[in-house]
Amino acid sequence: MIETPYLLFLGDAPDALAAKVAQGIKDWRPEASLGQYRMDGCNADMGLPDMTILQAVDAGCKTLVIGVANRGGVISDAWKTVLVEALDAGMDIASGLHNLLGEESILVQAAERNGKTLHDVRIPTIEYPIANGKKRSGKRCLAVGTDCSVGKMYTGIAMEREMVDRGMKATFRATGQTGILITGDGVPLDAVIADFMAGSVEYLTPDNDDDHWDLIEGQGSLFHVSYSGVTMALVHGGQPDALILSHEPTRKHMRGLPEYQQPTLQQLRDTALPLAKVGNPNCKVVGISVNTQHMSEDEANAYLAKVEAEMGLPTVDPFRHGAGRLVDALATI
Amino acid sequence: MIETPYLLFLGDAPDALAAKVAQGIKDWRPEASLGQYRMDGCNADMGLPDMTILQAVDAGCKTLVIGVANRGGVISDAWKTVLVEALDAGMDIASGLHNLLGEESILVQAAERNGKTLHDVRIPTIEYPIANGKKRSGKRCLAVGTDCSVGKMYTGIAMEREMVDRGMKATFRATGQTGILITGDGVPLDAVIADFMAGSVEYLTPDNDDDHWDLIEGQGSLFHVSYSGVTMALVHGGQPDALILSHEPTRKHMRGLPEYQQPTLQQLRDTALPLAKVGNPNCKVVGISVNTQHMSEDEANAYLAKVEAEMGLPTVDPFRHGAGRLVDALATI
Repeated sequence: MIETPYLLFLGDAPDALAAKVAQGIKDWRPEASLGQYRMDGCNADMGLPDMTILQAVDAGCKTLVIGVANRGGVISDAWKTVLVEALDAGMDIASGLHNLLGEESILVQAAERNGKTLHDVRIPTIEYPIANGKKRSGKRCLAVGTDCSVGKMYTGIAMEREMVDRGMKATFRATGQTGILITGDGVPLDAVIADFMAGSVEYLTPDNDDDHWDLIEGQGSLFHVSYSGVTMALVHGGQPDALILSHEPTRKHMRGLPEYQQPTLQQLRDTALPLAKVGNPNCKVVGISVNTQHMSEDEANAYLAKVEAEMGLPTVDPFRHGAGRLVDALATI
Repeated sequence: MIETPYLLFLGDAPDALAAKVAQGIKDWRPEASLGQYRMDGCNADMGLPDMTILQAVDAGCKTLVIGVANRGGVISDAWKTVLVEALDAGMDIASGLHNLLGEESILVQAAERNGKTLHDVRIPTIEYPIANGKKRSGKRCLAVGTDCSVGKMYTGIAMEREMVDRGMKATFRATGQTGILITGDGVPLDAVIADFMAGSVEYLTPDNDDDHWDLIEGQGSLFHVSYSGVTMALVHGGQPDALILSHEPTRKHMRGLPEYQQPTLQQLRDTALPLAKVGNPNCKVVGISVNTQHMSEDEANAYLAKVEAEMGLPTVDPFRHGAGRLVDALATI
C-alpha cells in the first residue's frame, strides 16, 4: 500500500502527454495530490501548487510519485538528485517505470539510510496463487474493450466514484501501473507469470459483502492478439457479474497492429459473454462506455444514441457525461 | 538446445507415475534414450539398459535428463551425489523440476568446474518480444482441449512423427516442460511473463517454408479458469491454420476444479474457432483427438464412431490408433 498524500513528480516532461500518469492521479485522486515538482524544461502542468521537496514534506506529502515517462528508459542523474533529496527528507517514492527504482543503487542506499520505501509498481512483489475458480461473495464488474486503451480504467474509476457518492459499497481494483499509482494498491497484471494471472485476479478481488461491488480494471482486449491472454485471465479470474463493453470509435486499426481491425460491439458482446459465463453463469452485459474524446459534442451524442438503439444497452461516455447510467444498470444484476 | 543422446535419471521413483517425464521421452525419443539410471528404491523401469554414469558417458550420452518428480520439491542429497558425478564425468544436466538446478550451489560449482551446462527448462532463459501479430509463412496446427491434460502434447508429437514418416516437413513445437525435454527445445509458456506470452509463441513458430507444418503443443483449456489465459496466447500467438479438438471422455470434472464441468466438443469448437479466426481468418477445425486410455478397445471404438458421426470430423485416439487420419485432414487446408 502506497502512503498518501502525494507529491507528483513531473521531472522534465517534454509535453503534457509524457505526464499522463500524473494527469490520471490528479484527475482521480485530487484530494491526495497536494503538489507538483517540476524541473527545468518541464512543459507539463497539473495546475497544482509547485513545491520544493521541503515544502512538500512540510505540507504533509508522504510519497513522491513519478508521474512522467523517463526518456530512453533511463532514470537520469538530474532525476536521481531530486529523488535522493526526497528520500533524505522523509518521503517514500513510487514509480511505474520499466527502469526500476530498485535497480538504482544510489536510490536503494538512500532509502535504506532513511528507512524509506521504493515502490516499483511495474512488478509484482508477492507470490500469487494458482486460481481455484471458487465462487466468491460480493459482486464484480469488468470493462472489456474492442481494443487496448479505449477507456476501461476511466470507466471503472468513474463508476466507483459515482457509487461511493451514492452511498453504495464499491472498490476500484487496479490491474495496471497507472491504476495502482492512482489507488495506491493493486496487481500489475501484465508482469505476472502466466500460470498465476487468473490467481492474481482472484487475490485482488476476494470475498466481500453481498452488496459490495468491485470495479475491476480491464486490460488489453480479447481481440488484441498481443495481450488477449491477459484479458482472458481477467474474464475468468474476475468472475464478473456485469460486463461493460468499451469502445473508441475513431481508431483506424488495433493499437500497435496495423493489420488488424477492431471488432464490432456485437462481436465483442458475443465473444466476451459466453467466455465470462464459464466462470460465472449469471454474468450479463449491462452497458457500453464509449471514449468520445476525439469527437465533437454533437458527434458524440449522435454516436451514443445510435449505438444505444442498435445494442439496446445504456451507452455513455463516462468521462464526458458521468457514469450514472452505467451504475443504474448494475441494479439489474 | 539440449544435447542428445540422453541418460534418463529415474532416481528413487516410488512408482511408474512419478517417472512419467522419462516415459514421455522414452516413448517419443527412443533413438535419443540410450539408458536409464536407477537408485536404490526405484520402482520405475523404462525397459532401457541400466547404466552407471561412466557407462553412460562411454556409450555417448551427452545429457543426464531428470525424468522423475522429486519428493517434497527438494533435490535430495542422494540425488546430488549422482548429479555431481555426472557433471564431473562430462555430461550436462536437464531438468523441468520446480526446484531449479541453478539454485543448488553444489551443482552450480560442479557445472562451472567442468564447463558443463545446467538446463532448467522450467523457466525461460531468453527475453521474448511482445507479439506483433504479423502473418507468418508456413502452416501451423494447434490442439485445443476441453480440459488440461487431455492428450494435446501426445497428439502433436504423434502427428509430427506421422508427417516425418510420410516425408512431409513438420516440427513439433514444445510449450511445456516435458515437451521441451522430449524435443530438446521450446518455450516454457506457463512461466512466461503475461505481456510476452503471445510473443513467445510467435518466437517459437517463426516464418517457414510454405509446405512446412508446425505442430504447436497446446496448454490448458479455454474453459479452464486457472489457465485459460495461457491457452488464449497460444490461439492468438500461434496463428493456427488448423485446430484439433482434444478430449478425455471419462473425466468427472475439470482438472483441479471440482465445481466445473468440461464443455462439450461442440462448445469447444464454437468457442475456439472464432477466437482463432481473429489471428488467422482461414483457420479451420480439422479433426478430433480423444484420449481413450481409460476405456476398453470396444468402448473406445464405439465412442470414437459416435463422436465422428455427431461432429462430422475425423475422430481418433492418436496414441492408440495412430495419427494418420488427423494428418490426412491437414490436406484440406
